[in-house]
Amino acid sequence: MDSIAYVNGSFVPLSDAKVSILDRGFMFADGIYEVSAVLDGKLIDNASHLRRLKRSAAEISLELPQPLERIEQIQKELIARNKLKSGIIYLQVTRGADKGRDFPFPQGIRQTLIMFTAASDLINAPSAKSGIAAISVPDLRWARRDIKSVALLAQVLAKQAAASAGAGEAWMVEDGMITEGASSSVFILTHDDVLVTRQNGNEILPGCTRQALVRLAEEQRLRVEERTFSVAEALTAKEAFITNCAAFVQPVVSIDGKSIGDGRPGPIARRLREIYVDFARSTAV
Amino acid sequence: MDSIAYVNGSFVPLSDAKVSILDRGFMFADGIYEVSAVLDGKLIDNASHLRRLKRSAAEISLELPQPLERIEQIQKELIARNKLKSGIIYLQVTRGADKGRDFPFPQGIRQTLIMFTAASDLINAPSAKSGIAAISVPDLRWARRDIKSVALLAQVLAKQAAASAGAGEAWMVEDGMITEGASSSVFILTHDDVLVTRQNGNEILPGCTRQALVRLAEEQRLRVEERTFSVAEALTAKEAFITNCAAFVQPVVSIDGKSIGDGRPGPIARRLREIYVDFARSTAV
Repeated sequence: MDSIAYVNGSFVPLSDAKVSILDRGFMFADGIYEVSAVLDGKLIDNASHLRRLKRSAAEISLELPQPLERIEQIQKELIARNKLKSGIIYLQVTRGADKGRDFPFPQGIRQTLIMFTAASDLINAPSAKSGIAAISVPDLRWARRDIKSVALLAQVLAKQAAASAGAGEAWMVEDGMITEGASSSVFILTHDDVLVTRQNGNEILPGCTRQALVRLAEEQRLRVEERTFSVAEALTAKEAFITNCAAFVQPVVSIDGKSIGDGRPGPIARRLREIYVDFARSTAV
Repeated sequence: MDSIAYVNGSFVPLSDAKVSILDRGFMFADGIYEVSAVLDGKLIDNASHLRRLKRSAAEISLELPQPLERIEQIQKELIARNKLKSGIIYLQVTRGADKGRDFPFPQGIRQTLIMFTAASDLINAPSAKSGIAAISVPDLRWARRDIKSVALLAQVLAKQAAASAGAGEAWMVEDGMITEGASSSVFILTHDDVLVTRQNGNEILPGCTRQALVRLAEEQRLRVEERTFSVAEALTAKEAFITNCAAFVQPVVSIDGKSIGDGRPGPIARRLREIYVDFARSTAV
């Protein structure tokens, strides 16, 4: 059955949800996006995602077509219209469609805002139990990865390389150090039980789930270090996992075919996932 | 008046030319493009553009939805339908729209092919006579700039910075060296009458007009060096210009507010523009 999407003020069947070929999101990747998880029909950690949306927009001088409060109202209405209980809601804002194609920012046109939902059982995802394999790939991306832009071709190629290798994620490597996953933040747990994740900066996206998890781990009295680390160090780790809005905490059991720890999901990753899901439900709106 | 666009097999008014919000060009910048100039109703240097389209597609494992011969037929039909005499034809190919959003390549879906035209008097562009100002900006782009992808957000920001500064082009600088313009190749002429342009590689787009011009200049017995050069060297040049499919050869008279040469378009740039236009007309199809 066709779900309902939102396009610039209208709720339409997803199969009819279209934008102009002149849309700057289509021609220039001149746009940004956010994905929020939905559990029990409610938005998870959405304030954090909307804050990041606002930041991404400001970094590329893109005016949001609606205030954040209104964007959240539309998200909620779309979830209700689709009777979505568990899954994700995707939203994208672009600089709109002008009359032609010219690189500089157009004047006097309306930005594009679209949303759609996708149902899936986030809590019982099989990979949360089994863990996933990761591969390492060179990080080919641009210099402003802190902006959540739709210029995702490098990530597409990285994810395809992972899929071709039978892996669930690609860890991107620059100057010998892991930046992040193609659609996730990366954590490792050292043998001294220190949780390590790369520090924020232009080199990585400031992950919303990453941020929440760092705080939750510290509340559990886990020591957290935000610093760079290499594939070699990850291979010596006791555990490893990735985070993102829909995967929550997902154990990584191997990289480039070599086991991490005993090659099975570890207890800390499992525990942090439970803690994150509790947090998610408690903050849902 | 609304012009006619081409979208996946149909000729439709440009205002009705749309793609799905699930199109991978819109969500992932998972697509490539080409722009060809049109003079006297004919395509300029189009074989070179279609060769590059094929190469870009291969580099991201994107199958073209039509053979190049058919793509050129569609280009010609669209030019005829729009009675386009002078201007450009834009074409874009994306990996299509799947049922949802998943990074790896989808299976069994049709790629998207769209085209539209824009009329303009390319021969008598005022900037060809007056020259343009350029500014230098950091080159923020990804590591595969040889692929003509629609992941153009860095170029949009560079062009906007140029427009804000009252300049016509942004020269992108990496490790102290000019890579290329945000939508052009860069040439300088030294005081020894050596034409210098950066060598091809992953760091720049292999410009079609650049390639033709290097050959035409050599036929004129101009010495051409393909090598890196800095903004400082460009400032000591006798002349400078940019090339792209629609600007042909466009003199650059200043960078960051400092004059190049005597601050006016130089005779070699003017002469090379004439030679290029002759070549363009002689090879038009």
